[in-house]
Amino acid sequence: MTATITLGQLAEFLGATLRGPADKHITGLATLQEAGPDQVSFLANPQYRKFLATTHAAAVLLKPADAEGYTADALLVPDPYLAYARISHLFDPKPKAPVGVHPTAVVAEDAFVDPAASVGAYAVIESGARIAAGVTIGVHCYIGARSVIGEGGWLAPRVTLYHDVRVGQRVVIQSGAVLGGEGFGFANEKGVWQKIAQIGGVTIGDDVEIGVNTAIDRGAMDDTRIGNGVKLDNQIQIAHNVQIGDHTAMAACVGISGSAKIGKHCMLAGGVGLVGHIEICDGVFVTGMTMVTRSITEPGAYSSGTAMQPAAEWRKSAARMRHLDDMARRLQQLEKIVEAVTSGGKASSDG
Amino acid sequence: MTATITLGQLAEFLGATLRGPADKHITGLATLQEAGPDQVSFLANPQYRKFLATTHAAAVLLKPADAEGYTADALLVPDPYLAYARISHLFDPKPKAPVGVHPTAVVAEDAFVDPAASVGAYAVIESGARIAAGVTIGVHCYIGARSVIGEGGWLAPRVTLYHDVRVGQRVVIQSGAVLGGEGFGFANEKGVWQKIAQIGGVTIGDDVEIGVNTAIDRGAMDDTRIGNGVKLDNQIQIAHNVQIGDHTAMAACVGISGSAKIGKHCMLAGGVGLVGHIEICDGVFVTGMTMVTRSITEPGAYSSGTAMQPAAEWRKSAARMRHLDDMARRLQQLEKIVEAVTSGGKASSDG
Amino acid sequence: MTATITLGQLAEFLGATLRGPADKHITGLATLQEAGPDQVSFLANPQYRKFLATTHAAAVLLKPADAEGYTADALLVPDPYLAYARISHLFDPKPKAPVGVHPTAVVAEDAFVDPAASVGAYAVIESGARIAAGVTIGVHCYIGARSVIGEGGWLAPRVTLYHDVRVGQRVVIQSGAVLGGEGFGFANEKGVWQKIAQIGGVTIGDDVEIGVNTAIDRGAMDDTRIGNGVKLDNQIQIAHNVQIGDHTAMAACVGISGSAKIGKHCMLAGGVGLVGHIEICDGVFVTGMTMVTRSITEPGAYSSGTAMQPAAEWRKSAARMRHLDDMARRLQQLEKIVEAVTSGGKASSDG
Repeated sequence: MTATITLGQLAEFLGATLRGPADKHITGLATLQEAGPDQVSFLANPQYRKFLATTHAAAVLLKPADAEGYTADALLVPDPYLAYARISHLFDPKPKAPVGVHPTAVVAEDAFVDPAASVGAYAVIESGARIAAGVTIGVHCYIGARSVIGEGGWLAPRVTLYHDVRVGQRVVIQSGAVLGGEGFGFANEKGVWQKIAQIGGVTIGDDVEIGVNTAIDRGAMDDTRIGNGVKLDNQIQIAHNVQIGDHTAMAACVGISGSAKIGKHCMLAGGVGLVGHIEICDGVFVTGMTMVTRSITEPGAYSSGTAMQPAAEWRKSAARMRHLDDMARRLQQLEKIVEAVTSGGKASSDG
Repeated sequence: MTATITLGQLAEFLGATLRGPADKHITGLATLQEAGPDQVSFLANPQYRKFLATTHAAAVLLKPADAEGYTADALLVPDPYLAYARISHLFDPKPKAPVGVHPTAVVAEDAFVDPAASVGAYAVIESGARIAAGVTIGVHCYIGARSVIGEGGWLAPRVTLYHDVRVGQRVVIQSGAVLGGEGFGFANEKGVWQKIAQIGGVTIGDDVEIGVNTAIDRGAMDDTRIGNGVKLDNQIQIAHNVQIGDHTAMAACVGISGSAKIGKHCMLAGGVGLVGHIEICDGVFVTGMTMVTRSITEPGAYSSGTAMQPAAEWRKSAARMRHLDDMARRLQQLEKIVEAVTSGGKASSDG
Repeated sequence: MTATITLGQLAEFLGATLRGPADKHITGLATLQEAGPDQVSFLANPQYRKFLATTHAAAVLLKPADAEGYTADALLVPDPYLAYARISHLFDPKPKAPVGVHPTAVVAEDAFVDPAASVGAYAVIESGARIAAGVTIGVHCYIGARSVIGEGGWLAPRVTLYHDVRVGQRVVIQSGAVLGGEGFGFANEKGVWQKIAQIGGVTIGDDVEIGVNTAIDRGAMDDTRIGNGVKLDNQIQIAHNVQIGDHTAMAACVGISGSAKIGKHCMLAGGVGLVGHIEICDGVFVTGMTMVTRSITEPGAYSSGTAMQPAAEWRKSAARMRHLDDMARRLQQLEKIVEAVTSGGKASSDG
């Protein structure tokens, strides 16, 4: 499925400077290497500059500085990657769900579904839930009692919200995500785990995106809270009582333990893990698969783990690592001896 | 949604010593810092003791020793955290599903659903399955052929059980969990993977909890087995043939490889990974994100991984780590030389 | 549920040399230790050879070399594990879904479902989708617009395919898997993340297996591509634009970041993570929980991480690890001093 739009329309939509014929037809987007003569491309990363000379793209989104010497058709914009983001939606083949409630959906009598919302086949909406205007509830979704989806939200097929989950405006939730699951709360009574009811809810801000199969547990007493503009990738685990500040982004497979508090504008790369009850300040970047075991109070980049090696070499490193404390002590001991010897030597050579 | 109960009723329910008016109305639970005048709080962790002086809680669950000098209303109990766990259920706003089979549920003719069970909308129960009294099968659940759910179980919406999964009594399963998936079994024939049918099932004990999007694969030949009282958090992977002992708990994102056998009363923190075919004895605690590559035969705490550092420092550590074996050899070499020199020195000073 | 088949039939099916009565009845498969007198077992791993003497198995799949001295009934085959894989399907109790479309399934008018396909209860098949002959679409599955499932595919209950996902022949997809989710693409505009529409699709080859709750995101512009014969275990994350070569296998909880390209016949053990935009050549084996931060150009085995220790010892190692760069510098310094001293010593003893 392809859209068709002219180069002139794209220029107007972006406020870009057009170099080339306004009536050229554009049917899609592609990388510089793969673009065909009907597709627009972009140059954002300087390392792809070399592909400019040979691209077959209908036109390229370029910074004015990068356009010098480029003679083929182009759209000049201050931030080509952002421009690409903006026009990408014009070419999105994602089907638009019809407004209205599918006849197979089960909606509780006292639930509210705005007439300008869409509810898919076999969706179930429980008592007291509220679905605002412009919301899409996908096929097989479940919206628990008293849960709320704000205006313009889009829920893929098969999203589950337990009760008392409050979702802001324009929130996107991918398939398999579960909001409001019962957090991992147990009290140990002589070796046996006694369940603690999770009586809090979940509050999600505006413009949040939640990835495939991501889980956000409800709070133990108060709500688990996700700020505005937060972007969560796939397979993420957010435990009970976690708080995430505005515009923080997390890549896939991140795990955040209970009651951790993460600041604004943070970035957590894939596979990062946080222990519970710690605090991460604003503006922190954590590299992939890092184990965060303490609070971070200074913005900046943080890492843990070891670099990959051929397995045979790694086995030696790993074996040595287990004796690192011993090595450190022996090094210190050696320093003392050498210090004594060389001082002694000096003394004797002085003598 | 809030429940209302009196302080006197709570004291009676808990067998607690009441300090304060029995007719005080309580509507919920909260932490010491956040509790309002209608909410009960608790002091379990000594580091929160400082908040006792300023809490607005209606009453606080306290050990008698901690209550000395505390003059506001209190409930004296031997284990405040356990007491909190017990009363938490009185304030749980989780809706109770109506008894009976929803008209849209598809139940096989030869499946058995106890009249005192609840089956939600669009649930599907296959041939030969058996649902005991007091069980809740949530909306969109799928119960495969011959699978069994014991008395008092609670399945959240969208839980999937394949065929031949036997679940004990009072088991809680959160949304997105999949029990009985086909384990990862393939035989390699000249570089091509040939599937091995997974003909075993899954056996789950009593009082088990299984978290959101957790997967427990069926056995290759015999059953995968989860003991009584085991608690599994979200996003956990339990491979085929795994055996987990009674009252073991695992935090989120743990991955257990095939045929691993874990003892009783173990605790695995978040993100821990186990290789296959190993055995962990009873009473083992494994810290977060540890890679367990060998059997553990002694109870105690185990760890792997490296501590987080600022990324610039970490890059240096990680680079050095790759040459650790070389460093260790050089250190040994140096020790020999220094030993020779200092012995020589001694010898010469002796001479 | 058990099948019954004779030893002679198994021998014929496998082309095995039969040692024992052809009319012996076999009802299942089990390990050497657990097999009863109606079950066939196999010896693949030499370390289980010791169980041959005491097994109660009806017959054992053996290499001719291993059968020397074994006097009980046996099936002689060149590769017992592969033979076990092949006969395992004869004993699989997995129910076979009836051909045809369940009356509760919602199939778009312009979708195509082959009359020899099976579509389960409450499945939804969207506009333009095509389901080939011999395909099973499980209960609660969702097949998005224009998506295609090739001949002989088997989708467990509750599998979600977004639009424009093309799946080859004989592909097995376990419950909770999501194909075609919107990848994690955002452009940062002054600290605010702007969504990039994910306009590519997903292409899955023939004979692929996709595990429980595994996620494969659609491409940003072009397709995410999974080669023929690829086997993906549970809880795996495949980000947008990833390419995976034929016959590569990944164990559970692996995470592959965007635009990574993985060769043919690779094996990634559980919990491995790859950063984005790197390339792994054919024939690479990565051990469990390794963090792959750079391209791999040579076949072979690769690892990262540290070995598990008792937690008290580990804390010392981890603390030292943070000062490894300092240690390395001190070692170098010491080497220089010792070199100077010993040369000096030599010089002086020479003089």
